[in-house]
Amino acid sequence: MSKVLVFGHQNPDTDAIGAAISYAALQRELGMDAEAVALGEPNEETKYALDYFHLQAPRVIEKVTDETQDVMLVDHNEFQQSVSDIAEATILSVVDHHRIANFETASPLYYRAEPVGCTSTIILKLYKEKDIAVVPEIAGIMLSAIISDTLLFKSPTCTPEDEAACHELAKIANVDLKTYGLDLLKAGTNLENKSIEELLDLDAKSFTMGDKTVRIAQVNTVDIEEVLTRQFDLETAMEKLNLENSYDLFLLVITNILDSNSELLAIGDPVDKVEEAFDVSLDKNRAFLKGVVSRKKQVVPPLQNVF
Amino acid sequence: MSKVLVFGHQNPDTDAIGAAISYAALQRELGMDAEAVALGEPNEETKYALDYFHLQAPRVIEKVTDETQDVMLVDHNEFQQSVSDIAEATILSVVDHHRIANFETASPLYYRAEPVGCTSTIILKLYKEKDIAVVPEIAGIMLSAIISDTLLFKSPTCTPEDEAACHELAKIANVDLKTYGLDLLKAGTNLENKSIEELLDLDAKSFTMGDKTVRIAQVNTVDIEEVLTRQFDLETAMEKLNLENSYDLFLLVITNILDSNSELLAIGDPVDKVEEAFDVSLDKNRAFLKGVVSRKKQVVPPLQNVF
Repeated sequence: MSKVLVFGHQNPDTDAIGAAISYAALQRELGMDAEAVALGEPNEETKYALDYFHLQAPRVIEKVTDETQDVMLVDHNEFQQSVSDIAEATILSVVDHHRIANFETASPLYYRAEPVGCTSTIILKLYKEKDIAVVPEIAGIMLSAIISDTLLFKSPTCTPEDEAACHELAKIANVDLKTYGLDLLKAGTNLENKSIEELLDLDAKSFTMGDKTVRIAQVNTVDIEEVLTRQFDLETAMEKLNLENSYDLFLLVITNILDSNSELLAIGDPVDKVEEAFDVSLDKNRAFLKGVVSRKKQVVPPLQNVF
Repeated sequence: MSKVLVFGHQNPDTDAIGAAISYAALQRELGMDAEAVALGEPNEETKYALDYFHLQAPRVIEKVTDETQDVMLVDHNEFQQSVSDIAEATILSVVDHHRIANFETASPLYYRAEPVGCTSTIILKLYKEKDIAVVPEIAGIMLSAIISDTLLFKSPTCTPEDEAACHELAKIANVDLKTYGLDLLKAGTNLENKSIEELLDLDAKSFTMGDKTVRIAQVNTVDIEEVLTRQFDLETAMEKLNLENSYDLFLLVITNILDSNSELLAIGDPVDKVEEAFDVSLDKNRAFLKGVVSRKKQVVPPLQNVF
């Protein structure tokens, strides 16, 4: 049997890496020659989780077809968020919790998407359906992914299934959920030693909306004002990235994980669509988005609707 | 809660209609206001199954948004095989066993695809996962769909899961699988009172191959020669359809469901590609395809390879 590479999206977050690790481990239990890889280095939060549970960061790849034909995608499906040569690979399976778009296969495949808060919640179901036990370190990275994606259950994307899965995994991994969860999230808000460019690339995704390409980056913090001390530099860099990558619009969502509000910074065109989508007026390119913490549920859909 | 319409593809076959009925029934058990509908009248085979198990044919619709926003798709995902206004509807879930293409949603959804021979095989799994019993008449239409899609396990698309599901459902529905299966398939081969045009439209799909548009129709029979008594009329109609619809090539696959062989009738260009794909020489536009019963697995891929 040929080797199978399992990976999450570009600019990996804890779910992209955690789901790749846990799904590859499940596939190995099922007899596949599966390896978890990643489309980028782990961020500070993910590093904290990997270290805590004594797991290695997955090998970073950019393309797959020079080493294998067969891949499995986790935590994404849109081709522009995947490896550069995804269209030439054979996608055996997808496990995801996002909308489906810009995705196509030549043959039937296994596709499992559920509208839950985290891919790892679905992967726990798959372990159970196959009657395979989750070992403690894998449980650890899975629960870290759920904490990360749901902001410790505060995100509107969080479902009762995510919460139940997280509690179950915390028992297996033997951690106190609240203590570990806050430590993990805080590890991810350490933005001090990040350059402007790193900050804008930390958790950024591109979306096709109407005939526009919209780049949406998000950073978590415990102090929005601290991030905004660098507003001028951020704007300059966003303009530069728009030009270099032909983005029409660059949005930066700065989220306070403690009070669950965000500040939006918008550079490019059309900003009137941004104002319409969130029913706000941009002031100095900024707007306060009360109660907004989820790009997937609270940022992308209203934008998609007005575009 | 708003009403949800559940339906399969255009030109519905027994799986398209059976999966809609059984998935809508499951959703009602789960508390949804779900109605099975269809994008066309049932064919002779499906009618036989519906009558046998005392089920009503689903109401035929062409669009959904005049009555509801929310839909669930079974046995298809490509928008051009769905209702005309699918792009304006909200797709809550999809259960399917085809490749994914020309499909897009604005929001996360439940998507369950598996590379098995029949959608109803997956739906039986969903009943089990939700711990809901399948009632006999629903088991009847589900097993009819599996028999239909797998030609009573003879198609190369059939998996051990399809076969096991069908045996399990036959027990619930209290039928002898072989006897009922052959009767059902024979009911679908009653082509006598079909016009030439109906026959060519019964189960026809268009494919883009290279820069050519290839239309591939398939009919099941227990007597290939009987269908070929109408060869001249078929050829005339195929030429006309090519002209009217800008098909480059029209292929009719006439499949004997008893001995699992097919006769191919090819009208249009380039026929040399057809000869190359199946390693045959066309004689009077015809060629014998030994052991070929599946358009999806045995007709489309070799053509796609030479084009």
